[in-house]
Amino acid sequence: MSTIKRLAVLTSGGDAPGMNACIRAIQLTASACNIEVIGFHHGFNGLLEQEYQSLHSHHVDNIIQRGGTILKSARCPALEQTDGPARAAEALQQLNIDALIVIGGDGSFRGTLAISKHYSGQLIGVPGTIDNDVDGTDNTIGFATALDTALDAIDKIRDTADAFERIFLVELMGRHSGYLSLAAGIAAGAEQIICPEFGTLSPANLKPIITPIQHAQLLKGKASYIMIVAENSYPGGTTALAEALTEAIGIECRACILGHIQRGGSPVGADRILATKLGAYAVEQLLQGANLMMAGEVNGEAVLYPLAKTGDRTKAIDPFLVRWQQQIGSL
Amino acid sequence: MSTIKRLAVLTSGGDAPGMNACIRAIQLTASACNIEVIGFHHGFNGLLEQEYQSLHSHHVDNIIQRGGTILKSARCPALEQTDGPARAAEALQQLNIDALIVIGGDGSFRGTLAISKHYSGQLIGVPGTIDNDVDGTDNTIGFATALDTALDAIDKIRDTADAFERIFLVELMGRHSGYLSLAAGIAAGAEQIICPEFGTLSPANLKPIITPIQHAQLLKGKASYIMIVAENSYPGGTTALAEALTEAIGIECRACILGHIQRGGSPVGADRILATKLGAYAVEQLLQGANLMMAGEVNGEAVLYPLAKTGDRTKAIDPFLVRWQQQIGSL
Amino acid sequence: MSTIKRLAVLTSGGDAPGMNACIRAIQLTASACNIEVIGFHHGFNGLLEQEYQSLHSHHVDNIIQRGGTILKSARCPALEQTDGPARAAEALQQLNIDALIVIGGDGSFRGTLAISKHYSGQLIGVPGTIDNDVDGTDNTIGFATALDTALDAIDKIRDTADAFERIFLVELMGRHSGYLSLAAGIAAGAEQIICPEFGTLSPANLKPIITPIQHAQLLKGKASYIMIVAENSYPGGTTALAEALTEAIGIECRACILGHIQRGGSPVGADRILATKLGAYAVEQLLQGANLMMAGEVNGEAVLYPLAKTGDRTKAIDPFLVRWQQQIGSL
Amino acid sequence: MSTIKRLAVLTSGGDAPGMNACIRAIQLTASACNIEVIGFHHGFNGLLEQEYQSLHSHHVDNIIQRGGTILKSARCPALEQTDGPARAAEALQQLNIDALIVIGGDGSFRGTLAISKHYSGQLIGVPGTIDNDVDGTDNTIGFATALDTALDAIDKIRDTADAFERIFLVELMGRHSGYLSLAAGIAAGAEQIICPEFGTLSPANLKPIITPIQHAQLLKGKASYIMIVAENSYPGGTTALAEALTEAIGIECRACILGHIQRGGSPVGADRILATKLGAYAVEQLLQGANLMMAGEVNGEAVLYPLAKTGDRTKAIDPFLVRWQQQIGSL
Repeated sequence: MSTIKRLAVLTSGGDAPGMNACIRAIQLTASACNIEVIGFHHGFNGLLEQEYQSLHSHHVDNIIQRGGTILKSARCPALEQTDGPARAAEALQQLNIDALIVIGGDGSFRGTLAISKHYSGQLIGVPGTIDNDVDGTDNTIGFATALDTALDAIDKIRDTADAFERIFLVELMGRHSGYLSLAAGIAAGAEQIICPEFGTLSPANLKPIITPIQHAQLLKGKASYIMIVAENSYPGGTTALAEALTEAIGIECRACILGHIQRGGSPVGADRILATKLGAYAVEQLLQGANLMMAGEVNGEAVLYPLAKTGDRTKAIDPFLVRWQQQIGSL
Repeated sequence: MSTIKRLAVLTSGGDAPGMNACIRAIQLTASACNIEVIGFHHGFNGLLEQEYQSLHSHHVDNIIQRGGTILKSARCPALEQTDGPARAAEALQQLNIDALIVIGGDGSFRGTLAISKHYSGQLIGVPGTIDNDVDGTDNTIGFATALDTALDAIDKIRDTADAFERIFLVELMGRHSGYLSLAAGIAAGAEQIICPEFGTLSPANLKPIITPIQHAQLLKGKASYIMIVAENSYPGGTTALAEALTEAIGIECRACILGHIQRGGSPVGADRILATKLGAYAVEQLLQGANLMMAGEVNGEAVLYPLAKTGDRTKAIDPFLVRWQQQIGSL
Repeated sequence: MSTIKRLAVLTSGGDAPGMNACIRAIQLTASACNIEVIGFHHGFNGLLEQEYQSLHSHHVDNIIQRGGTILKSARCPALEQTDGPARAAEALQQLNIDALIVIGGDGSFRGTLAISKHYSGQLIGVPGTIDNDVDGTDNTIGFATALDTALDAIDKIRDTADAFERIFLVELMGRHSGYLSLAAGIAAGAEQIICPEFGTLSPANLKPIITPIQHAQLLKGKASYIMIVAENSYPGGTTALAEALTEAIGIECRACILGHIQRGGSPVGADRILATKLGAYAVEQLLQGANLMMAGEVNGEAVLYPLAKTGDRTKAIDPFLVRWQQQIGSL
Repeated sequence: MSTIKRLAVLTSGGDAPGMNACIRAIQLTASACNIEVIGFHHGFNGLLEQEYQSLHSHHVDNIIQRGGTILKSARCPALEQTDGPARAAEALQQLNIDALIVIGGDGSFRGTLAISKHYSGQLIGVPGTIDNDVDGTDNTIGFATALDTALDAIDKIRDTADAFERIFLVELMGRHSGYLSLAAGIAAGAEQIICPEFGTLSPANLKPIITPIQHAQLLKGKASYIMIVAENSYPGGTTALAEALTEAIGIECRACILGHIQRGGSPVGADRILATKLGAYAVEQLLQGANLMMAGEVNGEAVLYPLAKTGDRTKAIDPFLVRWQQQIGSL
């Protein structure tokens, strides 16, 4: 058992729907254990600059349904400087922080690990990113919402694509991961999905993606054709890909870059529940002595996973769905 | 390996968002295996009365996002008559149906089992109900959408409750199960959740639910107080409970019965993906010889589960969340 | 021209989406004119009890999209007591309020008029209610959102009604007005609309509403039948009406009472724009000396209308749509 | 009075939410008058190629809530060829079409007028475009939905902009019109709106748009800053503008191009009602002999307006809101 009197929390990296729900669960759980809670602003920047606020229950009232993060998020280049981690640890000590919870992705967890070298308190991570590219948890906070936000947009594009009989390329976020693209593509009934996991796409060889388009146009007479394209799948981006395709097949292909709308919005139920569970679990595990771990959920159970392994990229996207999409869904 | 030339599908019982996505996956997967697909209308009624349609790919084009079911659903009292199952089996034989997929809840699966006594073909179930009360699968098709539909309504009620400083009792569906109520209650940040799993509620003893209300009003000065009430939790219904509470505490408590809006709407991503996976898996398993099984998903893997055990009610709602809500979420 | 140094605003009666957008416009417009703004809490109760807050620009930052009202709303029985209006006026004088803006319905405007007998400052109303039953403005703030909230629910009910081939009676708010019911009924393609403007409905004579149901069932074979019922249209309520119909026609008719979800939710664009325009216009007109007027919008133009006439109930619902629905839409 | 036995309808140009609701109203109204209705596919292309379908009531059942258009839409270069209009008129005569209703924008109406020179039947237009740039009607079918779709996206961008303290440029559709951008900008509480009506923007002089950004950053410390940019407002597009701004002010400005999601989606109530009213009115006016007119709505009344004047671009965007946004909303 660990004695924690003062707990800090921050949100780091790209914001994700559900971060507020997680802050709320942390505050409520810690308060119930008589732990004081403070929140740093702007991710690690607020830690370095000691910009923070006390978090009381009225601060987290009615935020479970809000997008964004009341603590603001940010990347923090300052933490990556040579003395950054030591300065961050110093700030934690000065403020008598016994434990810090970092809500973010694996990049934020690397920063957390760097701080640990200089800090005697406990550090724990909670996975919050729409990309779902963090090892040690089935889902990250924000993924389920981003999926539904993307779907809502793709359904609308389907309406107009169908009315106009057009080919659309819809670019989704995901950094180096195709999680969101595969899920959204399956769920939208997309005719084709292009993501890193399916192999590299080269301007010199567009045939593998052109053939199914021509096949669909010829054989099935489908009114619309939607391709989901994970960002970073093509040199020059999805707009360049659309232009290359248009030229290659002689039918206009339009690009639609969904962009940052995928980050916002009220979190869906699954994200609120996951955020609540992981936030509460993180506090409970800190009290049990957990350190340098991430609070994740695997097969429905809250579990700890070493922070150091969260960025190993060993989590595979559902092989059943990959196979089905390639063999049948894209017919 | 099994030889299937003609496959039938029907949707039975209360409709659930995602049933269309499942029909689509079944049609696409079967077609890719050169299996003919027909769909019975109105659940088992269409089977008994041989009311059906061929299902071609253009029938399932652009239905993945539609609520309801293109095959219509219904309860079927005729199937429960003594000669019902035999007549159903006879119809299947007459129509040369080698296998039947039933999308529905455990009640529909009981009907399916009854038919099996008279039928030489294969029978498989796919769990489709918003109640998530079917054993052998982590989630049923429709549950995730119903959760978000309920949440959307509760968030709106929170707006007005908060503006007016009111107490609301929101009744959710679930039959005998509190799955939807617990999930929605946690996700909405409800101050109290009443569901069968938490014990019986008696008009003679309302104290366990009154005490937290008074505690919240006194200590926390919360602007609004929302109680989620699973249907069938109180004799006379949630309106009667609201009246009893109003009288007991002297503050107006309003009931809001969400009702059938929980059944409709475009399915969310999670339901479309689950429906696609289970529909495809059901066809593949039929080809492997599966019979009298349900296609479910457990820990992310598609699995078979005996139809006969799907109604055992052994699936527990998340104990971590139950404990958290009772100890902390309701503070 | 009028000199206003200190302006107060309050939201009164049933809350409506867009009230926050209106508060924001009032604050921004007044601040730009160097007027101090305070907001009373809980409608007229906050005025009587001098419970208020200063309103600065950061208070209204990012509230344009929020449902409810940051000032809280309430009915105020105390204002209806003999000395209520005088006490309210006294509070305004004590706080040096030069002008008060009341956002609410015609009931709130009656209270405002009562105060005017004892108050030397300026009083102006802005119509905020989902019922759209205020004379002097084409639309009230909140109506457009309530319409879309109702529609969203009715579309979901259509999904399940259609899947199950059922008859649904959906009760909408509106007090004594059928505005919302007619608009939602037309927009949902409802087969029948029952509202006060179409005549009284008596348990003794249900024939006028039964005949079209039977006609539709017989001739058109429609899968679903949706009746929109304005609240207060039938003795005993819509549930009683559904039971009476079920008995009369021998087909199950289900009631669905939408209730308070119609009051909440993020305001739609039309409400945010109307709220912004009327809030800004109210401040500008106060500076021009307006008193005992309501700021409304007629034919796209912001106009003043005497507060005393806002409850005359002379605003008719669109006769073209009424005729079309009765002659054609209900076929 | 005119005798119409056979009526045709088509949707032309960019599709708009509500086109289906309009087709439905036309079918229902015409059927009630015993007029046969056919629908051409793909806009004027279907007319030229005599590709059409009969429209019966079951075709329009449950389409009032669907985005897109069941008749498909398209541009039609063939109509602009020398012999295009004559060929179109010939097809109408051959098919014994007594009257044609064209749902589209002013470009489609120009095509309609060209046909009239060779056609003895009646021609009427119904304004359907998200751009709201058609004279003779306060609103076009689709505008209200596109506004709410844009708002929904901008609200999400606000969430993430606010969490990350970023500057976003959100590009909306509108061709040469700022209607949608002004409305969405006001309704989103955008800090700045750039549209054609506000003057030309030149790369050489970005100062007018930079000054308010710097003012806001310096004085108000706003967490986020959102600029709505009407398409075609800047040479090279909104991405180029974002880059120019980033360089000029030294803070990252991100572009988000909403694109075709603005065209899809279930129509909101206002669009369904307008579409129903104008569709019904168009049929009624054809029966009264109307020809070469557009059915519009002005000040709540259905009115006829000469097709030839619909593209005059005399409709001004609300001067009150323009002034308010420039003087106050952008502070």
